Amino acid sequence: MAAKQFSETHTIPFYECDVNNRITIPMLINVLILASEHQNEQLGVDQTTLIDRYGIGWVVISYSIKINQLPTNNSTVKMTTKGTSYNRYFAYREFWLHDQAGNELVKVESIWVLMNEQTRKITSMSDDIIAPYESKKVKRVPRLPRPEIIKDLAKADAKQYQVRVSDIDFNGHVNNSVYLEWMLDALPMSFLGRYIPRQIDIRFDNEVKYGNLVTSSVVVDSTDRDRIKTIHEITTGDEISASATFIWNQINVEGSQQS
Amino acid sequence: MAAKQFSETHTIPFYECDVNNRITIPMLINVLILASEHQNEQLGVDQTTLIDRYGIGWVVISYSIKINQLPTNNSTVKMTTKGTSYNRYFAYREFWLHDQAGNELVKVESIWVLMNEQTRKITSMSDDIIAPYESKKVKRVPRLPRPEIIKDLAKADAKQYQVRVSDIDFNGHVNNSVYLEWMLDALPMSFLGRYIPRQIDIRFDNEVKYGNLVTSSVVVDSTDRDRIKTIHEITTGDEISASATFIWNQINVEGSQQS
Repeated sequence: MAAKQFSETHTIPFYECDVNNRITIPMLINVLILASEHQNEQLGVDQTTLIDRYGIGWVVISYSIKINQLPTNNSTVKMTTKGTSYNRYFAYREFWLHDQAGNELVKVESIWVLMNEQTRKITSMSDDIIAPYESKKVKRVPRLPRPEIIKDLAKADAKQYQVRVSDIDFNGHVNNSVYLEWMLDALPMSFLGRYIPRQIDIRFDNEVKYGNLVTSSVVVDSTDRDRIKTIHEITTGDEISASATFIWNQINVEGSQQS
Repeated sequence: MAAKQFSETHTIPFYECDVNNRITIPMLINVLILASEHQNEQLGVDQTTLIDRYGIGWVVISYSIKINQLPTNNSTVKMTTKGTSYNRYFAYREFWLHDQAGNELVKVESIWVLMNEQTRKITSMSDDIIAPYESKKVKRVPRLPRPEIIKDLAKADAKQYQVRVSDIDFNGHVNNSVYLEWMLDALPMSFLGRYIPRQIDIRFDNEVKYGNLVTSSVVVDSTDRDRIKTIHEITTGDEISASATFIWNQINVEGSQQS
């Protein structure tokens, strides 16, 4: 039996877009997560129910994001998601973003765990919570590409960020989309005006809290000019909070993407 | 003849909310501005048309925001706006946010100017641009309350912010909602957990650009315990970029607002 699929449409407002009028990567993540939250609600297993009834919540540990095209201001997109499969500790969820003509703009694979809200420890999957998604029980969930690690952190470009009140979500932790904001902001604006991500592999290792001072480090690897790569790390003190590898396409003169 | 009124509904997603699940003040401003942008489009005088045809754009110089109640995650609100009146240099625009039962949640008054995109100088109102709104031509537009100024800036609490790429909007300048984020973030999280704004008067004096280092200063005036007041200034070097006065209500134990 295939997992239940959920779809809804969303019209992108100006404040979800960047200086080039394309949806920002943090907002791309937010709108996709919104679709999965709406599926959770529809199936009677939303965040509040999970916390109230079981004292647990979903936490994402990695995303693999394939971007064909980023939708722009005022365009209407269809978000689709399903909880494809799971094993004892991990759940594999897929997301798609389509334009109104049915073209696939973005495909996201993600790995999730259930975490005890008090102890912040991973708990095993419970049938009560998983059953409504009709996810396939598997031995191994797919392995997402592991982001590269910066070899010499001292030589990387780095910016520091004090966690803002507005970075904190409902759970009291930094919202996942904020890590992507820190990662992108470590790149110069001139870079972000010339390149657009076509692949992002990101892994969340440790939670960041209000008051933490984080460092966003980046190394640009342009040895292959057709495949500019950036390697990112968010660190809090000596601890890695998140790491990511981005592959970029050059933006052509018309402002659209090269394939 | 009364000015043309525009309304639309909006359902608030989790990522427009704060740690208490209420819409954030920066997002409140964004969703209201979205309604005015949609009115501009409907009337054929949207941002792109103004820039392409006249080389000018709308810039807000002050808001007076009265908050009866802040809507929460997943609630649907009605945004309403009209370009009420104007004179040679200033336009007066009103906004309302209502819940689905028709209760007024928020009322915003605002003063706008038209600015030349190249010279960044104010230009006089042109009939071509104003006519579609059916705004009333007046001698004087209403004067909004002027925010107080911090008397001794050296004694204020202050935080510094490096302008992020993601703070920059379509115009290449810091989006207005970001000033409100900096202002609020200068307050401790414990304060923001206990109080909720009921009145915000904000004035934008000078534009901030990418790469600028800004200081967000705040003084909390709690001499009148029933009317906690905070005075805010955003400065770039020696220049005031924005100033604001917030009046706060204590949040009662149920999490709702005291009147």
